[in-house]
Amino acid sequence: MIAKTTKPPYYAVIFTSERTKNNNGYSKTAIRMEELAKKEAGFLGMEAARSELGITVSYWNSLEAIQHWKENVAHSEAREKGRSDWYKAFKVRICKVEKEYGFEK
Amino acid sequence: MIAKTTKPPYYAVIFTSERTKNNNGYSKTAIRMEELAKKEAGFLGMEAARSELGITVSYWNSLEAIQHWKENVAHSEAREKGRSDWYKAFKVRICKVEKEYGFEK
Repeated sequence: MIAKTTKPPYYAVIFTSERTKNNNGYSKTAIRMEELAKKEAGFLGMEAARSELGITVSYWNSLEAIQHWKENVAHSEAREKGRSDWYKAFKVRICKVEKEYGFEK
Repeated sequence: MIAKTTKPPYYAVIFTSERTKNNNGYSKTAIRMEELAKKEAGFLGMEAARSELGITVSYWNSLEAIQHWKENVAHSEAREKGRSDWYKAFKVRICKVEKEYGFEK
């Protein structure tokens, strides 16, 4: 589902990744991280898709909210596991959403 | 592939979409649009993935470059077709990438 975010400005974290073939615990952790992120103050929504590349975009109302989520202990542990097991490469981009428009039938 | 962008700040356009079942001309146009975007001044890279949701992120060195690409005639025609045929819903978010970090094995 397209995330129903507030009016800009707000923040987006674009997480782009290339996976390894190691799926050990990956799906369970991905679901858990989404559950935990939703409970964070300032969380606005999340969108994800995977083909060869995986793209997950999470939306937040402030840089402080992003930082707080980064410091979450379970999230930090998951990131460690990501580096050691699940990802060949990833990139995280912290962005300020300045403008948006949309379309719905 | 993860896009090899320059050092921030630069700009990202996050295009999130829900498709209809109408594929008529879609793939061909998507490939053509990527080819054309790559030729635009200020284009830095593109990343795409599709599951239930499609996410395409394109990166640009300025808001002017994004505007110029938006005004491209072939791109405008493709967007019209997108609204009439290919998409149930979409959202476009124009963002300033302020910070990034990555990891590669």
